[in-house]
Amino acid sequence: MKIEKKDFIFLPLGGSSEIGMNSNLYHYQDNWIMVDLGISFADETMPGVDILLPDIDFIVQRKDKLKGILLTHGHEDHMGAIQYIWDKLRVPIYGSAFTIALLKKKLKDIGLLNNVELIILNEDKEVNLGPFKIKPISITHSIPDPLSLSITTESGTVFHTGDWKFDNNPKVGAKTNLDNLKSIGDKGVLAIVGDSTNSFVEGKTQSENDAYEGLKSVIKSSNGRIVITCFASNVARIKSIIEASIENNKKVFIAGRSLNRAIEAANEVGYRVEGIEKSFKNLENFSHDSAVIIAGGSQGETRSTMTRIANSQHEQIKLKPGDTAIFSSSKIPGNELAIERVHNALLRNGIKVITDEDELVHVSGHPGKDDIIKLYNLIKPQISIPVHGTSRHLREHCQIAENCGVSLSIQPENGSLIKLSGNSPSIIYQIPTKSSVPDGNQIIKSDSSIFSTRRRLLWNGSISVVLAFDFDLDLHLPIKLSHNGITEGKSELEWVSEVRDDVEETVNSLTKNQLTDDKIIEDKVRSSIRSVTKLFFNIKPLIDVHIIRGL
Amino acid sequence: MKIEKKDFIFLPLGGSSEIGMNSNLYHYQDNWIMVDLGISFADETMPGVDILLPDIDFIVQRKDKLKGILLTHGHEDHMGAIQYIWDKLRVPIYGSAFTIALLKKKLKDIGLLNNVELIILNEDKEVNLGPFKIKPISITHSIPDPLSLSITTESGTVFHTGDWKFDNNPKVGAKTNLDNLKSIGDKGVLAIVGDSTNSFVEGKTQSENDAYEGLKSVIKSSNGRIVITCFASNVARIKSIIEASIENNKKVFIAGRSLNRAIEAANEVGYRVEGIEKSFKNLENFSHDSAVIIAGGSQGETRSTMTRIANSQHEQIKLKPGDTAIFSSSKIPGNELAIERVHNALLRNGIKVITDEDELVHVSGHPGKDDIIKLYNLIKPQISIPVHGTSRHLREHCQIAENCGVSLSIQPENGSLIKLSGNSPSIIYQIPTKSSVPDGNQIIKSDSSIFSTRRRLLWNGSISVVLAFDFDLDLHLPIKLSHNGITEGKSELEWVSEVRDDVEETVNSLTKNQLTDDKIIEDKVRSSIRSVTKLFFNIKPLIDVHIIRGL
Repeated sequence: MKIEKKDFIFLPLGGSSEIGMNSNLYHYQDNWIMVDLGISFADETMPGVDILLPDIDFIVQRKDKLKGILLTHGHEDHMGAIQYIWDKLRVPIYGSAFTIALLKKKLKDIGLLNNVELIILNEDKEVNLGPFKIKPISITHSIPDPLSLSITTESGTVFHTGDWKFDNNPKVGAKTNLDNLKSIGDKGVLAIVGDSTNSFVEGKTQSENDAYEGLKSVIKSSNGRIVITCFASNVARIKSIIEASIENNKKVFIAGRSLNRAIEAANEVGYRVEGIEKSFKNLENFSHDSAVIIAGGSQGETRSTMTRIANSQHEQIKLKPGDTAIFSSSKIPGNELAIERVHNALLRNGIKVITDEDELVHVSGHPGKDDIIKLYNLIKPQISIPVHGTSRHLREHCQIAENCGVSLSIQPENGSLIKLSGNSPSIIYQIPTKSSVPDGNQIIKSDSSIFSTRRRLLWNGSISVVLAFDFDLDLHLPIKLSHNGITEGKSELEWVSEVRDDVEETVNSLTKNQLTDDKIIEDKVRSSIRSVTKLFFNIKPLIDVHIIRGL
Repeated sequence: MKIEKKDFIFLPLGGSSEIGMNSNLYHYQDNWIMVDLGISFADETMPGVDILLPDIDFIVQRKDKLKGILLTHGHEDHMGAIQYIWDKLRVPIYGSAFTIALLKKKLKDIGLLNNVELIILNEDKEVNLGPFKIKPISITHSIPDPLSLSITTESGTVFHTGDWKFDNNPKVGAKTNLDNLKSIGDKGVLAIVGDSTNSFVEGKTQSENDAYEGLKSVIKSSNGRIVITCFASNVARIKSIIEASIENNKKVFIAGRSLNRAIEAANEVGYRVEGIEKSFKNLENFSHDSAVIIAGGSQGETRSTMTRIANSQHEQIKLKPGDTAIFSSSKIPGNELAIERVHNALLRNGIKVITDEDELVHVSGHPGKDDIIKLYNLIKPQISIPVHGTSRHLREHCQIAENCGVSLSIQPENGSLIKLSGNSPSIIYQIPTKSSVPDGNQIIKSDSSIFSTRRRLLWNGSISVVLAFDFDLDLHLPIKLSHNGITEGKSELEWVSEVRDDVEETVNSLTKNQLTDDKIIEDKVRSSIRSVTKLFFNIKPLIDVHIIRGL
């Protein structure tokens, strides 16, 4: 791989041919900039792993050439990795007011706030980072202050969409400025690097105002106390719920740490969230049915407010049969079963459950096919590079772009080094990438033997034994043995006794010479314990054998 | 809880307010019968657990009163638990010819075939088990030979549907006999115990013949080699695919152990599966595009044929860009991500993927709302007891029954002891149930500390240390230490050295008196290791401390 100074390069590190963990690099004239640094969540193939981080090794090796990290918006899949791996890069971070307000709260929690240079981007006000001229473009999405970025070098302009939708009535911030997008297109755009999340969804994405109207009508026709959950950072939705509730003469309470943080951040940057009661601790002062509670936990997260309410485990917030729970959110793929469990807990308690499959209580933050077509018609890029999605999503996005007359589509995977400049823009190299895992204080590669060892422990448990020999090479009895996650009860006694007998027999069968060699004893004893355990339980525990000699 | 001899009781042990693991009991005159004994699959909240078994403790305590196990059909969620827990019951098993043929193959594998009394049920031929008169009713579903059971006592008849659909052209076996159902209804039915899987699906379920027609047209218009996956036991679907392929002048190959077993069982009972090539090992003798391969693995199972083909890991079966993969199956909830990974692997290799969302290549085996209504109109039961589904599904089924004029619906959970006889049929007692897990050779309760210990190992790893003291209570150095799944590389050396120093210091700080007490040393040393490890890595491993004294 050879990158020339004059090459205008796009290199996705995460979020290309996968969902989440969005992070992208651009190169020009020996300078790099990063757009977004998000996390994703491990799926069921990785038990023992929660969060995944993109592979930033490539840019860590070139960090003196990295000018900064630009954040398109404040969702976890776009900025959640900063708290874990910014330390390896130590460059300034740029983002809109709300994005930076939200990031500040996270950095404060982990004691990094004073270390990181944070710079607020203002719409249409160009920032120069080395040879890059970056113009932040106000767009709409499901969080306040999202930005698209127009990234210009002497080799052309990339329109990097970030997550986006068209919204004529977004409830927070201005509606999408189509004239602005058109004027960018008119100046000539080399490539769109664009959101593919909803590339399979036909038609146009509805406005936040449609969700507001839907909620107003659902709240009107709902019985009892109402609990509504939504994505915590969707401040517009929180406002929609509050307004829809007040229109119906309800009192609104907020319950959930992330919700409160998002509201605080919104208030700090001037998107006032008003009309809510002070604290749900005063709930008992109001009649049961007059309350609408906005609760965190739309994805069925185990310890979230909504889940605890559903399971009757919330100290203050109680529901009764006949009450209503509204899920003003979509299901993130992989969370289906967790959400279903919460629905079922509610239904078992006689609570009515309303989701976006039943009523218009949620609208997406991503563009449907017709919106994507409209964007291509405004921006008129030469090249389409779909990101934010699995191979399927990216392929579908390419198809849409081709139907719009875009002559070249390049479908990336993480690590695809794409040369945008020159006569034949294409993937010129594929960098191998491997995600990392924040584990306690450590950042561990996801294919580390630490995780494979732990998974073996998960399925098989562990055993440790001590063989103590005196100076005459006689074995000290009884043999010390402990075990974790193997068995219990009557079987345990039988198995332990059999293991002890078998180990003793094994040791007795060794010659004096063999008994002086720790390695031989260890191997023989381990193999003896393995056999007995396989026979008893048909599992393969990890076995630690310690040898102690004459004290 | 007091069960009177004259009480006609229905007691679901599994499958009520959950998906899978179907097992049900009926009681009359001090006799019990069991209908189905299935497994379910653990979800992401139970890492380290694969299969779940219903709680049969209640009936094990009364096994001398259990007359037999009746199987409605051969799906794993209805008979998969037999191989694990039949031994605790040791009663005869009844089922249709195909069900028993399939069960025989499983029992043979585990060496139980000669121990179990297997009795084939014939349609409409009544079987008497103690006070129960049981009439097997031929029905249609997505596996050959499914049965509904008409279970009659002096206190009335229950129509136990099993999994079912109406199908006028099921491709294997006879079409649904509506006259038969009507005549059962006309004789008077106390209760339906019925399938709720598709209670949210509007309309009627399509016929297997519709899937056949859809497949024929999709195969006709598809390019290249075609791989099709379906549920292995869906013999009708296998036949549909074969016929649809031959109509299109294709050669058909079967790849997958479960598929071959199902075909063998079908052939044994007279449902001849014909028109397939001998072995896919001869694949190379045919032109690439002439082959249709029916492959196991519709749910994205890691080691299945379809997954290996998709990942280019199959020795004999290779695909090329432009080929086609057809998923002639639904997604079982919880498998969405696994299936998506297979789709993406195929797409990355340039293979076209067709699912039931794109084309009519699959029909459900369960009744939609209109079918359920039709059944209620034929059977006209006094009581509706929905089973096979989560609370949501059961509740919806109750609603449908009520709309059909059924005056009483009883929504069970596992362990709900429902008295059907007498003046006010209702749940008279709730038996606590707790599923079990087959783990190697052991059957362990799912809430056993064995699993919680293993999960702690999964997230934190394990450490074992040996403290050896001589007769003077002096500590033998260096301290023996081993660890699994904690850390690696440079951090490991630093941490081990720090742990050793800290443990030594801890031991040195103890009085002579304390040093004679193993328990005190263990606690202090464990706490010292815990502190160092928390500081280094912020994890909480399991720590085994062994103490050895003067040899």
